[in-house]
Amino acid sequence: MPSPAVVIGVDSSTQSTKAAFIDAATGEQLAVGRAPHLVTGEAGARESDPEIWWRALCEAVAAGLKESGLPARAVTGIAVAGQQHGLVVLDGAGRPLRPAPLWNDTRSAPQAAALTDALGGPGAWTERTGSVPVASITASKWQWLRENDSTSAAGAAAVRLPHDFLTERLAGVAATDPGDASGSGWYSTATGAYDPELLELLGLDAALLPEVAPTGAARIGSLTGAAAEALGLPAGIAVAAGTGDNMSAAVGLGLGGEGLLDHPALSLGTSGTVFAASRTRPASTALNGFAAADGTYLPLACTLNCTLAVDKVAALLGLDREDATPGGDAVLLPYLDGERTPDLPTASGLLTGLRHDTTRQQLLGAAYEGAAVTVLRAMDELLAACGLDPDAPEVAARPLRLIGGGAQGRMWVETVRRLSGRPLV
Amino acid sequence: MPSPAVVIGVDSSTQSTKAAFIDAATGEQLAVGRAPHLVTGEAGARESDPEIWWRALCEAVAAGLKESGLPARAVTGIAVAGQQHGLVVLDGAGRPLRPAPLWNDTRSAPQAAALTDALGGPGAWTERTGSVPVASITASKWQWLRENDSTSAAGAAAVRLPHDFLTERLAGVAATDPGDASGSGWYSTATGAYDPELLELLGLDAALLPEVAPTGAARIGSLTGAAAEALGLPAGIAVAAGTGDNMSAAVGLGLGGEGLLDHPALSLGTSGTVFAASRTRPASTALNGFAAADGTYLPLACTLNCTLAVDKVAALLGLDREDATPGGDAVLLPYLDGERTPDLPTASGLLTGLRHDTTRQQLLGAAYEGAAVTVLRAMDELLAACGLDPDAPEVAARPLRLIGGGAQGRMWVETVRRLSGRPLV
Repeated sequence: MPSPAVVIGVDSSTQSTKAAFIDAATGEQLAVGRAPHLVTGEAGARESDPEIWWRALCEAVAAGLKESGLPARAVTGIAVAGQQHGLVVLDGAGRPLRPAPLWNDTRSAPQAAALTDALGGPGAWTERTGSVPVASITASKWQWLRENDSTSAAGAAAVRLPHDFLTERLAGVAATDPGDASGSGWYSTATGAYDPELLELLGLDAALLPEVAPTGAARIGSLTGAAAEALGLPAGIAVAAGTGDNMSAAVGLGLGGEGLLDHPALSLGTSGTVFAASRTRPASTALNGFAAADGTYLPLACTLNCTLAVDKVAALLGLDREDATPGGDAVLLPYLDGERTPDLPTASGLLTGLRHDTTRQQLLGAAYEGAAVTVLRAMDELLAACGLDPDAPEVAARPLRLIGGGAQGRMWVETVRRLSGRPLV
Repeated sequence: MPSPAVVIGVDSSTQSTKAAFIDAATGEQLAVGRAPHLVTGEAGARESDPEIWWRALCEAVAAGLKESGLPARAVTGIAVAGQQHGLVVLDGAGRPLRPAPLWNDTRSAPQAAALTDALGGPGAWTERTGSVPVASITASKWQWLRENDSTSAAGAAAVRLPHDFLTERLAGVAATDPGDASGSGWYSTATGAYDPELLELLGLDAALLPEVAPTGAARIGSLTGAAAEALGLPAGIAVAAGTGDNMSAAVGLGLGGEGLLDHPALSLGTSGTVFAASRTRPASTALNGFAAADGTYLPLACTLNCTLAVDKVAALLGLDREDATPGGDAVLLPYLDGERTPDLPTASGLLTGLRHDTTRQQLLGAAYEGAAVTVLRAMDELLAACGLDPDAPEVAARPLRLIGGGAQGRMWVETVRRLSGRPLV
């Protein structure tokens, strides 16, 4: 039996890399190789050496190939989806000048605020890039670098996002895609290109940036000989532009120009994320108006407190996480880490409605409700930003895609179903 | 050995009667007899038949006498301290016309509000009676009776407070004292007499009311033959005017004209109560400006949520009530039953400051702190109403008397000590 044609999808995330071996004809996942990363830093710092990502990619591909039992020649293409927003600065030989500040590095918060002001407020940013600068946006990190490590900033021969860096290692071509580029803070979702005025504001030379491929699926080159050797794969196979992790998740869910549009997906994890592919360019300061990998848009809102916050309440009450009932008169907003959506960075967890007849199970249920209603409100804002009325019957009837760890929990599913009034898939 | 001279102090409270046999020379308590009461009613109603109090008094005295082993002739005097505020209406023969609505009967709340308005607001009431009418004040209950049982109101030959009713059964004399009278809503602490204008407002004939003795300790008569027979005591022994339960507690603590003035006492029970004897007539709408039994004043403030509310939080957290630490950033206002001081009748329990590193012990500590700070704030208002600056060093240095069930708890004592910064006795 001849080997099937196989493509490799690489997920280079914050803590680890996965390489999924997929049958190109059927879409079946044949094997997955994994390798962990190291994140270092304290007091707001979160950094990784990009070379670690590259080594992890090589290890994960090797492990996946071994698990699949396939010959290397079966592999015909590869693309990378990476954690968004991280800032990679390279020297002229493509070597990292320093560890990359990651998306969750909060040292760049002051720079984000200053950038927002510099353009006259959130609205101007939404207008251009689709998103308001926060600490996670790459532009904020670039400003932080200029102020705190000017040697690296001044010496940078190339500026990359994490997935661009890996794609360039594979194909020797400096390329990115609209999706990941839209999280940089210097790419305009309005024009589909880097924004010259923003680059000037940031003191960033456009020549340092990769070309933006039309879509993440576009072939931008071929596997180089050096990369082929490092990966144990045939040189010359197709390398696609790849994209950011949220954009690739949308592709995996079938959202986008080829599939479901304006169907919201809810990811219940450490944080709660809601996103939808849309042809309408979203413009709301309450969410990230990313581009998708395929020419559509990917408005995305993210709450900070979701499954981890509810688990903390369960632990305080000494309850199993499934041992909950509806909260009754108790209302609990589990903003244990402060909150981002709504924008309440200094908030903490709040409980009200406590009575003598309140049960522990109700308190835990109230925590579920508070976390769920927060992400469902973000969903309503997102639908409105797509030009849809969330309360209109035909919009409210659209099934909600529930993903992430919380989607495995009975109480999560019941709570979202009850509070949203929507069918879940 | 001759028998010591013994006096009997009767505590006729909401749920039971105690008769304490005291050595008149030494103050030593020789025996205590007890008998329970029945309180009936639902949906806000709380009533008892006054005849039950009388029978319980007889039983408690008999039980105490038996326990003491003393001959009846050793007893030389008796006085009653009773639950405040209850409304007793009698026929011409001294028989109750109906069950007495008690202090905690809340059906009279609308009448309290109407009375407050009728005089032009809280300030006018504080000016005259020292207290603003609430549902518990006797005047509110009298208005409720006129509106809801006009037969009993119109047919009343005598109107009494619970302790007056019992004193009259003992001595055949209609007498009360300034302390209990000051909780009626028709006695002026400014003039030390019934207020004719308030009686007119209430449609209440002064002839229906008992004489006000100068102090609760004043002898108002002698034990009648009938009472002596019912109690198994010698006829002719002294009967003093007696007083309300809060006033007698102040006497027991040594507060008042003969003892410590302006030294606050904190009672930590189901509700938290703070009071102090003062020569200054208090005038604050935030507290009850009672008269004391001895010619001084007894300003008193009462919070609704104290030990029971903290115990509820401990139960929710699965903690022993002593397993608490200071609350840290967590703030918990345990107003599980709504609150009266401050005036937040529709409040419920509120928690804020919840973080991922918050412990169960901190949450319980925060409940202690919330309940304690509520009663300590009431104490500051009370001291201010006595003309004292709570922050002045000589005032802040006065020891706080901690009584009630909470005074037995280590965490209660530590929390009050820490938050008040005062020495405790």
